[in-house]
Amino acid sequence: MDLTHSPLADGDRDTAGGALQGALVDLVDLSLVAKQAHWNLYGPRFRSVHLHLDEVVATARDFADQVAERAAAIGVSPDGRAATLARTSGLPEFPAGWIADDEVVGHLVEAFGAVIGRMRERIEQTDSADAVTQDLLIAVTAALEKHSWMFRAENRN
Amino acid sequence: MDLTHSPLADGDRDTAGGALQGALVDLVDLSLVAKQAHWNLYGPRFRSVHLHLDEVVATARDFADQVAERAAAIGVSPDGRAATLARTSGLPEFPAGWIADDEVVGHLVEAFGAVIGRMRERIEQTDSADAVTQDLLIAVTAALEKHSWMFRAENRN
Amino acid sequence: MDLTHSPLADGDRDTAGGALQGALVDLVDLSLVAKQAHWNLYGPRFRSVHLHLDEVVATARDFADQVAERAAAIGVSPDGRAATLARTSGLPEFPAGWIADDEVVGHLVEAFGAVIGRMRERIEQTDSADAVTQDLLIAVTAALEKHSWMFRAENRN
Amino acid sequence: MDLTHSPLADGDRDTAGGALQGALVDLVDLSLVAKQAHWNLYGPRFRSVHLHLDEVVATARDFADQVAERAAAIGVSPDGRAATLARTSGLPEFPAGWIADDEVVGHLVEAFGAVIGRMRERIEQTDSADAVTQDLLIAVTAALEKHSWMFRAENRN
Amino acid sequence: MDLTHSPLADGDRDTAGGALQGALVDLVDLSLVAKQAHWNLYGPRFRSVHLHLDEVVATARDFADQVAERAAAIGVSPDGRAATLARTSGLPEFPAGWIADDEVVGHLVEAFGAVIGRMRERIEQTDSADAVTQDLLIAVTAALEKHSWMFRAENRN
Amino acid sequence: MDLTHSPLADGDRDTAGGALQGALVDLVDLSLVAKQAHWNLYGPRFRSVHLHLDEVVATARDFADQVAERAAAIGVSPDGRAATLARTSGLPEFPAGWIADDEVVGHLVEAFGAVIGRMRERIEQTDSADAVTQDLLIAVTAALEKHSWMFRAENRN
Amino acid sequence: MDLTHSPLADGDRDTAGGALQGALVDLVDLSLVAKQAHWNLYGPRFRSVHLHLDEVVATARDFADQVAERAAAIGVSPDGRAATLARTSGLPEFPAGWIADDEVVGHLVEAFGAVIGRMRERIEQTDSADAVTQDLLIAVTAALEKHSWMFRAENRN
Amino acid sequence: MDLTHSPLADGDRDTAGGALQGALVDLVDLSLVAKQAHWNLYGPRFRSVHLHLDEVVATARDFADQVAERAAAIGVSPDGRAATLARTSGLPEFPAGWIADDEVVGHLVEAFGAVIGRMRERIEQTDSADAVTQDLLIAVTAALEKHSWMFRAENRN
Amino acid sequence: MDLTHSPLADGDRDTAGGALQGALVDLVDLSLVAKQAHWNLYGPRFRSVHLHLDEVVATARDFADQVAERAAAIGVSPDGRAATLARTSGLPEFPAGWIADDEVVGHLVEAFGAVIGRMRERIEQTDSADAVTQDLLIAVTAALEKHSWMFRAENRN
Amino acid sequence: MDLTHSPLADGDRDTAGGALQGALVDLVDLSLVAKQAHWNLYGPRFRSVHLHLDEVVATARDFADQVAERAAAIGVSPDGRAATLARTSGLPEFPAGWIADDEVVGHLVEAFGAVIGRMRERIEQTDSADAVTQDLLIAVTAALEKHSWMFRAENRN
Amino acid sequence: MDLTHSPLADGDRDTAGGALQGALVDLVDLSLVAKQAHWNLYGPRFRSVHLHLDEVVATARDFADQVAERAAAIGVSPDGRAATLARTSGLPEFPAGWIADDEVVGHLVEAFGAVIGRMRERIEQTDSADAVTQDLLIAVTAALEKHSWMFRAENRN
Amino acid sequence: MDLTHSPLADGDRDTAGGALQGALVDLVDLSLVAKQAHWNLYGPRFRSVHLHLDEVVATARDFADQVAERAAAIGVSPDGRAATLARTSGLPEFPAGWIADDEVVGHLVEAFGAVIGRMRERIEQTDSADAVTQDLLIAVTAALEKHSWMFRAENRN
Repeated sequence: MDLTHSPLADGDRDTAGGALQGALVDLVDLSLVAKQAHWNLYGPRFRSVHLHLDEVVATARDFADQVAERAAAIGVSPDGRAATLARTSGLPEFPAGWIADDEVVGHLVEAFGAVIGRMRERIEQTDSADAVTQDLLIAVTAALEKHSWMFRAENRN
Repeated sequence: MDLTHSPLADGDRDTAGGALQGALVDLVDLSLVAKQAHWNLYGPRFRSVHLHLDEVVATARDFADQVAERAAAIGVSPDGRAATLARTSGLPEFPAGWIADDEVVGHLVEAFGAVIGRMRERIEQTDSADAVTQDLLIAVTAALEKHSWMFRAENRN
Repeated sequence: MDLTHSPLADGDRDTAGGALQGALVDLVDLSLVAKQAHWNLYGPRFRSVHLHLDEVVATARDFADQVAERAAAIGVSPDGRAATLARTSGLPEFPAGWIADDEVVGHLVEAFGAVIGRMRERIEQTDSADAVTQDLLIAVTAALEKHSWMFRAENRN
Repeated sequence: MDLTHSPLADGDRDTAGGALQGALVDLVDLSLVAKQAHWNLYGPRFRSVHLHLDEVVATARDFADQVAERAAAIGVSPDGRAATLARTSGLPEFPAGWIADDEVVGHLVEAFGAVIGRMRERIEQTDSADAVTQDLLIAVTAALEKHSWMFRAENRN
Repeated sequence: MDLTHSPLADGDRDTAGGALQGALVDLVDLSLVAKQAHWNLYGPRFRSVHLHLDEVVATARDFADQVAERAAAIGVSPDGRAATLARTSGLPEFPAGWIADDEVVGHLVEAFGAVIGRMRERIEQTDSADAVTQDLLIAVTAALEKHSWMFRAENRN
Repeated sequence: MDLTHSPLADGDRDTAGGALQGALVDLVDLSLVAKQAHWNLYGPRFRSVHLHLDEVVATARDFADQVAERAAAIGVSPDGRAATLARTSGLPEFPAGWIADDEVVGHLVEAFGAVIGRMRERIEQTDSADAVTQDLLIAVTAALEKHSWMFRAENRN
Repeated sequence: MDLTHSPLADGDRDTAGGALQGALVDLVDLSLVAKQAHWNLYGPRFRSVHLHLDEVVATARDFADQVAERAAAIGVSPDGRAATLARTSGLPEFPAGWIADDEVVGHLVEAFGAVIGRMRERIEQTDSADAVTQDLLIAVTAALEKHSWMFRAENRN
Repeated sequence: MDLTHSPLADGDRDTAGGALQGALVDLVDLSLVAKQAHWNLYGPRFRSVHLHLDEVVATARDFADQVAERAAAIGVSPDGRAATLARTSGLPEFPAGWIADDEVVGHLVEAFGAVIGRMRERIEQTDSADAVTQDLLIAVTAALEKHSWMFRAENRN
Repeated sequence: MDLTHSPLADGDRDTAGGALQGALVDLVDLSLVAKQAHWNLYGPRFRSVHLHLDEVVATARDFADQVAERAAAIGVSPDGRAATLARTSGLPEFPAGWIADDEVVGHLVEAFGAVIGRMRERIEQTDSADAVTQDLLIAVTAALEKHSWMFRAENRN
Repeated sequence: MDLTHSPLADGDRDTAGGALQGALVDLVDLSLVAKQAHWNLYGPRFRSVHLHLDEVVATARDFADQVAERAAAIGVSPDGRAATLARTSGLPEFPAGWIADDEVVGHLVEAFGAVIGRMRERIEQTDSADAVTQDLLIAVTAALEKHSWMFRAENRN
Repeated sequence: MDLTHSPLADGDRDTAGGALQGALVDLVDLSLVAKQAHWNLYGPRFRSVHLHLDEVVATARDFADQVAERAAAIGVSPDGRAATLARTSGLPEFPAGWIADDEVVGHLVEAFGAVIGRMRERIEQTDSADAVTQDLLIAVTAALEKHSWMFRAENRN
Repeated sequence: MDLTHSPLADGDRDTAGGALQGALVDLVDLSLVAKQAHWNLYGPRFRSVHLHLDEVVATARDFADQVAERAAAIGVSPDGRAATLARTSGLPEFPAGWIADDEVVGHLVEAFGAVIGRMRERIEQTDSADAVTQDLLIAVTAALEKHSWMFRAENRN
């Protein structure tokens, strides 16, 4: 029995697998960045943003798990190790140390923008390769775009 | 920071935004109509239809919220105010006063028919504009068609 | 058997029925206005006000249902359709489009003020007509005055 | 220490106690009648009415308990024994044996009518005697009038 | 279709039906007696006995419902009306008015003794008539004997 | 270690195992029939019967599992495969296509009748073979006879 | 925007505000006294009274919160600070140190008596001032009189 | 009113209906096969596989219900009767009798492979016929491919 | 009042009491043995068997409590003290120290075999003595035989 | 039997008892102060701080109960009465009347600072006196320092 | 891989392991003693003490499990078998047969005293051996001393 | 107001802060490693280890959050970003690609060994610096040593 056995043809598996590995790295890194912000945040909106960031963490963790298990389901080994994240994540670098609430919100808006752009490319790529994978990436994008709107709404004066 | 910022190109945003605004109005009005029927109903099937109508209300409210927040997420301000409903809803007018259970069921079947037709057009329209919006409209349509079947089954002798 | 049968004398039924129909329209419209604000809100208090508005929606929907079913219980057909709301609601008009958090809070304070004034008149009117109806209107008013205080506290500097 | 100690003056205690004892008997008997109907019912609306009757039972039992404990709280011993019910209940007699759904609904409408009339008299009687007792009787009446409306709506063609 | 249709032969149905009708009356009356005691109780064990009595009420109500529906299932109309209880219950008469905790416990021990004796006879009677009915009566007896032990343990010095 | 090891003597194991295998087939087929009816039903009682049928499905699935695991526990391999059901079920054939509510209720009454008759024979057969198996079959029969009563009550005019 | 803005006329606000401030102090102090008793209690009824006292604490805390927020809602700043309690509470002084169960029960009966008397005066005072405040004070009184009965029943021999 | 009324054109309805009927049969049979394995399993992985199989049963039952109700919603009568399963299921035959854990896992991997292949064809077929049906079949396939991966992972050494 | 008072005749009480005391000792000791295995287990099936053993503990503790309280209910003092267990338990001795998973499973199969044999004798003994006690012992045996099957299935290769 | 019996030597009991009594007073007063702020708060962070303060109340009440019961457990009578709080609390005085959100946060930071300093001294004092008491005070301090950080983060610009 | 592998040095492991084995025996025996009392208790405080004893059982079982798994975690095989309990428990012998409530409370106070003394020695012994083990024993002691206080309070007159 | 304000003296804050930062990195990396294993695992123990690994993930995430917030509470900014993990984690490198169950268990045992060693050093370091921090690190170590034992038990033959 073979774990690389796939319900997809080889080319489709590689396309879908590449999209999923990229999504996995972005999502796990997003969960780390949102936790980092959750802990280092300060300012008058502390509690509100602190709680909102944990919802981002929950979204990112949940979809990272679904994305990684989808990769495994099509015969592609997922890689979510720290060194892989540090090397291949598409998120902008998050600054060290304490950070004010409006900077946190601004940084998250930027991070969502970067990840959403990459996710929308992955939706394109998987269109003919695998409808199941594409459907999952659409759900990921919907959730990210909703969080992105809320952070943008929060930072507009 | 700009709330009209969108992950979509301008034309796609307008197309998807129009479909979502239309869906929002239909769904909020459906929730009002189903509540009106819930309160004014009579006849031997009172309790059964009374309870079923509250499930329609729950479906309509839940999807209205998702549809409106999806519009916001792509940079389009949603409008669900009473005057907007009264002016632009696609539902047939619901009669005033007490109303018999078979008439209620018949009216709802007609209302579902009208809304489903419009939703299926919106699925078409958003096909190339935004896969995320289309996916949400497909979920809305699935739920409405399920309720529609149940009301048709209920009124057939 | 007659739905207009009432535990009240005719005059009392008309008085109580009128108060309940007015309360119904105000409450359903309040639920639409609070949802409209929930979706179109922006500013540094976005998340906090966004969540609070959904509690207003829940309060308004819950009492609208109780008020409508109380009308039915005394033999008066309730009317909560969109056109009726647009024509007879006592709430000030809510503006179209995106709206800043302090404007939202200010608008809601104004809306609560209008509705509370009308509800207190209805408590007076039903005093001799129907103790059961009056008791419900007192509960509605208590809940609205609590929300009103919180929004006033939120907007005072 | 004395269980007949009361927060009320003697005359008020007697008035309120009498109203509560009457309400207790009516409510316990209503719970027995609704269970009797729940078990002996037949007809095309069997399941719907069977379930609704258990909600009547729950309402009657819950308020019977509150009413009896309110009597105790003002120093009046409540009496809900079978013989007392058989002798003093204000409900019309429920027929023995199997009974069709429309007859059950009709009988319940009649029973609610009788009990509601007596409850409204008790609200009057306790107006000056005890505001706390009156408030409880108003809540009882609200619940009974809601059930009454639903059964009337169910039986009207 | 016939509600008197039974999975049992006529003689067995009559035997089982008689046992169930007797059990129903005893159980409903037990629930009324336990509530009466719950409300009229006083003494240093008030809270403890007050709470225990509500567990007896719950047991009695639950089994009364099962017993009545078992009667219906074998084609026998159950009768749990107040007049029937007053006329045919096997429980000793419960005194009117306030009652001390040790008297309550003593009275309940006596009542359990009476009902258990009759239930054990019904187990005998249904042995050849209907195994399903007998199994239910065994479960009733088990629950009653457990409560009986607890009240005896509570009153022994 | 041997799965055919049994706490019963060989003859008793065969008797009990035969009864359990028969009960398993009837119960799994009942779950399929009730689902078939749940999906193909129409008429004014649609929602009420639709929901009731899912309770029949739950009962049948739960007891099928208990019955199969009881067979395994006494060393007899249970067989609930589709071909075995098609070949050995004791239920009357359920018609293809849409089916009116009163016909569904009538068909279920007939099906319950057939299964109950066979279950009562199995209670007889296992009387001396295995008290534990018999006790389970008594519980199955009690549940089926309760559903059977409700469907008979529902179809009687 | 002004927190002293009130839905009531000035005189009514002062009357209702005074009643609420008095009720707040009594309720918070009652919660402290009941906790003090909960911790220092001994005697054969220890566990029973210990648990009952925590229900008194829950009642007192819940209503204190409602009462204070009602004061705020009518534009009156509530004061529940320790020094204010020590200075203005209407409860009798609770003794220091370990205390026997019957003394605890006796003390609580006395405390309930004092608070109930004051609450009934407040119900009178607010009758014309504010129906909403009066309704809340009626609910407080109902709960206190129920606890009072239970403690009286517990201490009577 | 007509149950064969469909939101789809006739050809699309037939295509989608055929795909759904095929999916229904495969899913119901999968639930029977997984239960059969759940009961007849043995070997060192008994408990682990026994529990996993019940998750497969839950998945299969849940999606069978959704698929059948989707067929009804587009006007096609679903058929999930035992004889239909036995005649048209696409699953490989499951052996009779006790079966070792590695054989069970191997058989399930084979069964998933067969069903997934057929589901992917159905996704193709419904692409132009009905987006709502296709979306459901994509969700079914995602769930089956996840279970398939887990069973393959479990059987690889 | 007498705790040795029994609903059974003296000889029946002694027979049933003896069976219950024996069952109690076996069940409490089974709970200790299963916990001992739960803690000292090792091997590739560690987690699976570790969790299963806690379900055995739960079964044994639950039934031990029911059995002991049944003894009390018929007037027989139950004895579940450590010394009594050590002296009279019917279980084979469990070895000290760490123990491999297949040995644990084998030991449990042996222990279940011993206890089941004794329980089946107790079912026989109580047949004429007390139907209620017998019914409880049948339920105990059903649960033990189900666990026994699972452990046998787990250890067969 | 003696409530002053202690698992500790007399000197240790006095040391630990003194630390616990001090902690009790600080915690109960903290709960009153946080409620006072919860009710009198205003400003743009109203809702966020209002909710956070109720979490402080919950923390303070929970630990006050644990601390008081720990005192009782070592034979020391705890004193949490209003007059004792007013006289011995270590918290700074909280101002009367409405209070702006940043002042509230500032006041709480100051209050946490005072209580934490005293708690850390109590951890020192109980180090050799009682490890169990010290462990509880460490848990109290951990919770207070977490709240303190959050309020400091909230007030820093 | 070795189960006797330990994060502790050998001497520390032996010290901590000895303390844990002693604690395990005392806790399991305490659970048996409390159950024995739970079943054999009588007297006016029956229900109150009966329920409290089950909380002692829950505490003892929960900590016994934690203590045994802590022993395993440091490489020491725990022994909680009946013979080991009978031979090495530190609890005073509990008498056979029915036992009055005050004697039960007295016996438990004595038992808690014995166990607490031994636990406090174990806290001493593990101070330098293993901080993790010591922390667990502190938690055990805190729970036992709380129960001990409650039983002492209950038995003091 | 200053986030670097600390309840600790500067040296103690640095010591405790260093220990917490080290623990944070180890725990977050452990959560990533356990998820990596959860996704890439294969072999006969797949399901059992797959589920156990998610419990390790939950433990690691929960304590990482507590540790980071404890650092913040003492005025030290925590750093849990991917690059920091990749650079400073104390865990052995986890291999890329699919990995057999026994290798996974072996790797986790090694990883737990490394982290536990470092945690025990941190417990030492914080002994005089901060009792609150030390208490948290003891809880972390207890949980890790429990998981470590289970994985060792699982891999021993």
